[in-house]
Amino acid sequence: MPVGTAATVKALTNEALEELGASIILANTYHLYLRPGHPLIHKLGGLHKFMSWPGAILTDSGGYQVFSLAALRKITDEGVTFRSHLDGSEHLLTPEKAAEIQLALGADIAMVLDECIETPAPRDKAETALVRTTLWAKRAREFFLVNEASFGGMRQWQFGIVQGATFADLRRESARQLLELDFPGYAVGGLAVGEPHAMTCEMAGEVTALLPPERPRYLMGVGRPEQLADYVALGIDMMDCVLPTRAARHACLYTSEGRVLIKNARYAEDQRPIDPRCECSVCKRYTRAYLRHLFAAGEISAAILASHHNVHFYLDIMRQIREAIEFGNVAKFSAEMQARYAAGPA
Amino acid sequence: MPVGTAATVKALTNEALEELGASIILANTYHLYLRPGHPLIHKLGGLHKFMSWPGAILTDSGGYQVFSLAALRKITDEGVTFRSHLDGSEHLLTPEKAAEIQLALGADIAMVLDECIETPAPRDKAETALVRTTLWAKRAREFFLVNEASFGGMRQWQFGIVQGATFADLRRESARQLLELDFPGYAVGGLAVGEPHAMTCEMAGEVTALLPPERPRYLMGVGRPEQLADYVALGIDMMDCVLPTRAARHACLYTSEGRVLIKNARYAEDQRPIDPRCECSVCKRYTRAYLRHLFAAGEISAAILASHHNVHFYLDIMRQIREAIEFGNVAKFSAEMQARYAAGPA
Repeated sequence: MPVGTAATVKALTNEALEELGASIILANTYHLYLRPGHPLIHKLGGLHKFMSWPGAILTDSGGYQVFSLAALRKITDEGVTFRSHLDGSEHLLTPEKAAEIQLALGADIAMVLDECIETPAPRDKAETALVRTTLWAKRAREFFLVNEASFGGMRQWQFGIVQGATFADLRRESARQLLELDFPGYAVGGLAVGEPHAMTCEMAGEVTALLPPERPRYLMGVGRPEQLADYVALGIDMMDCVLPTRAARHACLYTSEGRVLIKNARYAEDQRPIDPRCECSVCKRYTRAYLRHLFAAGEISAAILASHHNVHFYLDIMRQIREAIEFGNVAKFSAEMQARYAAGPA
Repeated sequence: MPVGTAATVKALTNEALEELGASIILANTYHLYLRPGHPLIHKLGGLHKFMSWPGAILTDSGGYQVFSLAALRKITDEGVTFRSHLDGSEHLLTPEKAAEIQLALGADIAMVLDECIETPAPRDKAETALVRTTLWAKRAREFFLVNEASFGGMRQWQFGIVQGATFADLRRESARQLLELDFPGYAVGGLAVGEPHAMTCEMAGEVTALLPPERPRYLMGVGRPEQLADYVALGIDMMDCVLPTRAARHACLYTSEGRVLIKNARYAEDQRPIDPRCECSVCKRYTRAYLRHLFAAGEISAAILASHHNVHFYLDIMRQIREAIEFGNVAKFSAEMQARYAAGPA
């Protein structure tokens, strides 16, 4: 899922997303709650209509941004008190409130509020967060089931989020507790936040082994191009990441041969496309030399073209992984990607 | 002509320009000379190939930017010495050099170097600039005719630029002197730089009355939406302006009913398109409420969508003016535009 923080995937129009074949995007509840506000979006017919996006939308719970962006947060069993990073205003986000906001936004998939803790976390902190995450999930689920019908009859899928930091037994315990709440899909949260890739895989594997394969399994906030196949091999069905668009705005382009840091002087006269093997409309028309010039000149079109290419690259990886699944060679695909992206910047 | 300063129309891809029906764009010689440099662009096959734009391109002489952006400029009959606004490096722009750079860039239309003076200008200063402008035009024409063939056999049209500030007799004298040099097209320069619109029209009219109607007549750097028809009525065939794209980036949208300053709170819940009568792809899909949100959130897509709409609006004005010419009611069209845009910001 490309990330559309404020109801737009940065530097890409919806027309571009459709051309790229994006079928689902993620939008951030924290950002939309603060600006323009969920009551406004609800009044205008919901997020799909507001941003004119007929494809699927997943909204996160707002929790991750509260824990990473907002100031002066205070966590109790009731919820999280925080100050807006925009105007310093104080807000209380509870499991019920997060569910309510997302019902008002009207995305297709909503996430429960969970407690995100820093990594590496001591075991006692991870245990406390696990207990609270399950408590919050119960309240969110209950609120959702009671109130869903009053939000205009649209159907929303609410996903639970497994926590447990880097402790395998806690991850399993969290999954078991959430399974009792019978969510239509499950996410694995609190990973890829600094721990080694092998640890991310180990924890994701512990969880997917317990989750029902017929329900979507979503690993939140991943990942680097060479990691995606590993997660799929572990049973992950869904992922979201700002990397393709954020890297694009910082002149980092992904190719079938590894990263191209396009501002580098070596590309000044390079008349090849960003990736000679890429089928995207940017690679069919523009050269590396031109992209480098646009970045050097600080032009908006640099961000547009680079974002377009990088999102195409990510969606194409997913297409290749689906194909690899058909032919039973996901591991081989993963090894090839590792080799290409072993060195260099993220 | 939409303005593509650094070989890109800001916030618009070439695909967007093609969708908008832009048949010619303007690129700035000053900017491309400094970055990435005309030798590089020439080496890579010229500006069309460099930016992958098969439509027509006009390059200015670089003079206007030297006079408005660069520091420490010194003007002699030889040319203009200036310091780059990017790195402070010193450069000498002569009529020959401006012609040479533009031949290297390989645009379809090139402009001679002229002396741009501030407005209002005293008569003696305007006279001196006129003499120098003609002197430079002669040298530029001579250089062009001698050297054109050595630039890969492409065909370029070199235009002369009429100066003379706000003195009708000087404007006529400048036009007569340039006509002797037999340019395939002529521009009117040094207008719309602060003088009243009526004065711009008076001066443009003095010049177009003398210029051959079968050769393109180009009024440089205009104009506001409600002024375009007036210039056409005076015999102007070509115009360029940064206004549609610059205003777009500053959240000023042009509509058939006047300007919409989209950041205004009154548009927060406005589900209408930017302009209900507009046929552009932005107006067909997005609402004012959404555009306002994108600007409030500082999203790149705000600039993309707004620029798309505004350039469509300008090109549509030109289509309407062509139609008005057919039906003989350009004056009526002009009066209607004046009424809509009489008040409010530019």
